[in-house]
Amino acid sequence: MTIKIAILGLGTVGQGVYETLLSHGQYISEKLGTDTELVGVLVNDSSKQRNLPNNIPITTNYHDILSKDVDVIIEATVGDHPAFEYLSQAIEKGIHVITANKAMFARYGKKLKEKATKNQVHIGYEATTASGTPILRTLKQLLQVNQIEKMEAILNGTSNYILTEMTMNHTSFEDALEQAQEKGYAEANPSNDVDGHDAFYKSMILSELVYGQQPNWEYVYREGIREISNDQIQHAAQRGQKIKHIATVEMRNGEVAASIQPMQINDEHPLYSVDGVNNGITVHTDILGTFTLTGPGAGKLPTASAVIEDLVYVFHKEVKLEKQFI
Amino acid sequence: MTIKIAILGLGTVGQGVYETLLSHGQYISEKLGTDTELVGVLVNDSSKQRNLPNNIPITTNYHDILSKDVDVIIEATVGDHPAFEYLSQAIEKGIHVITANKAMFARYGKKLKEKATKNQVHIGYEATTASGTPILRTLKQLLQVNQIEKMEAILNGTSNYILTEMTMNHTSFEDALEQAQEKGYAEANPSNDVDGHDAFYKSMILSELVYGQQPNWEYVYREGIREISNDQIQHAAQRGQKIKHIATVEMRNGEVAASIQPMQINDEHPLYSVDGVNNGITVHTDILGTFTLTGPGAGKLPTASAVIEDLVYVFHKEVKLEKQFI
Repeated sequence: MTIKIAILGLGTVGQGVYETLLSHGQYISEKLGTDTELVGVLVNDSSKQRNLPNNIPITTNYHDILSKDVDVIIEATVGDHPAFEYLSQAIEKGIHVITANKAMFARYGKKLKEKATKNQVHIGYEATTASGTPILRTLKQLLQVNQIEKMEAILNGTSNYILTEMTMNHTSFEDALEQAQEKGYAEANPSNDVDGHDAFYKSMILSELVYGQQPNWEYVYREGIREISNDQIQHAAQRGQKIKHIATVEMRNGEVAASIQPMQINDEHPLYSVDGVNNGITVHTDILGTFTLTGPGAGKLPTASAVIEDLVYVFHKEVKLEKQFI
Repeated sequence: MTIKIAILGLGTVGQGVYETLLSHGQYISEKLGTDTELVGVLVNDSSKQRNLPNNIPITTNYHDILSKDVDVIIEATVGDHPAFEYLSQAIEKGIHVITANKAMFARYGKKLKEKATKNQVHIGYEATTASGTPILRTLKQLLQVNQIEKMEAILNGTSNYILTEMTMNHTSFEDALEQAQEKGYAEANPSNDVDGHDAFYKSMILSELVYGQQPNWEYVYREGIREISNDQIQHAAQRGQKIKHIATVEMRNGEVAASIQPMQINDEHPLYSVDGVNNGITVHTDILGTFTLTGPGAGKLPTASAVIEDLVYVFHKEVKLEKQFI
């Protein structure tokens, strides 16, 4: 049996997934224990120049994809719509879905998860949060035993890269942002990164995963990093502190509370040393205590690898069962 | 059905487990979905003064434990023997076992795991490595998809505490060790900590878990922290570096190689900021890239909590199955 894959969207993530499927094809097949076949790629503009083999069926019509025999759809489009409708239709057709679309998933994740359960398909979304760093899977694992009291996280690689450049090299905000864009870290619309929208969406996905609910979006304080000056950063440095853009999600007397804002933290804070494009999350649990997970938070390949990881999880259940006990 | 528990050994860990079972009894019962009952405690010296309720059946004879109706045995003794024989007999009787005995498990873990599989019981050993920090479980999770190329880890909380004190407060080695002992971090025999034996055993357990094999123990370079002077530490600090006691385990052309030694690392190393009694592990993987997990590495309660965590895992399989997909 060959696993038939379709990709929706060929932006940074979609392209990265496509390239990884090509470059790591054999490796992925080994992990899956079977071959994969890219049966369709949905794009907005089919006339756009792309270096794809001619035999890859590019289409601008989603129904061309659905009409095919597809096992899993990898959704890497931008925006809530029609991504949500696309995934809903796929799930209803019994197709597994994997998404990297955090804005859409923050809003419609719960609905899609319920739909997936109802239709007995898997929905992978590791790539929506912290890119290649397996935060979601690790939290899932922890939740089997621990209650999570509070999460503090650096969730946007671009903002953290910018703050790090401003701190280490006294770079201006504008120059640092430009660097991040050149390196391919920044979202298509940088406002998603520097105004905290991206971190906000990821926090909501974390909140949903950990607490089964999200705070009322209007009550979540969100502040980006545009207003932070090099002076402020240097003053903080003189006090041995760094300014980091930190998302906090916690359970407060039965209510989930969240905020996304720049914070001054000293070198005793576990996120102090999370620099550059890395992401990090500090989790306060009732049994295990406090621990921190850090890793790559942006970039074409880490994100693609999170998608591939989901792919392997979805199609390689036996391994999960066999290996779940230590 | 009540889960009947026996504890072997009432040292720091055994006592901690016992206290946690008492203090978190109801909480643990909720997690397990059933009550627990402590049916026996094995000690060396029954005349020793302990503040235990009289109704706890203390015994110096292991056969008193085995002759009981026991569901799980928590082994918290010191030394390879008779710990290995105790666990072997328990497993053969179909009793689940959980151990915090790293020296024994480094040497006999493979045998015990095979025996456990053969007898279809679970063997929990999260507590053997990095105390409350779920390194083993996280690695297991990762191994479902990733190949792990290299691990670098700070595995001994006491050594790290001593080095941190020497670095931050210019404390002498001797004074720092004394502090660690007062705080209850240090092993009964401090040589296990400061000469790298403890980190060595943990590395071997990691090697076994990740690579299914251990290097020949004679070929593992092991150096402790006794020889490190405050001067060396200050010189390193002047170059923006810290001296950390780091265990490295990696696959080199099909062979597992390991070393445990002090290393100078700069602030770009993910373990640079792992201070005090914390442990940390940096894992280099083929798909997810490099990420780092840090958390409490010593102390009565973190270790006890790792044991309790194993307890919940062993007796709460449904949750595992239900929650294993994101």
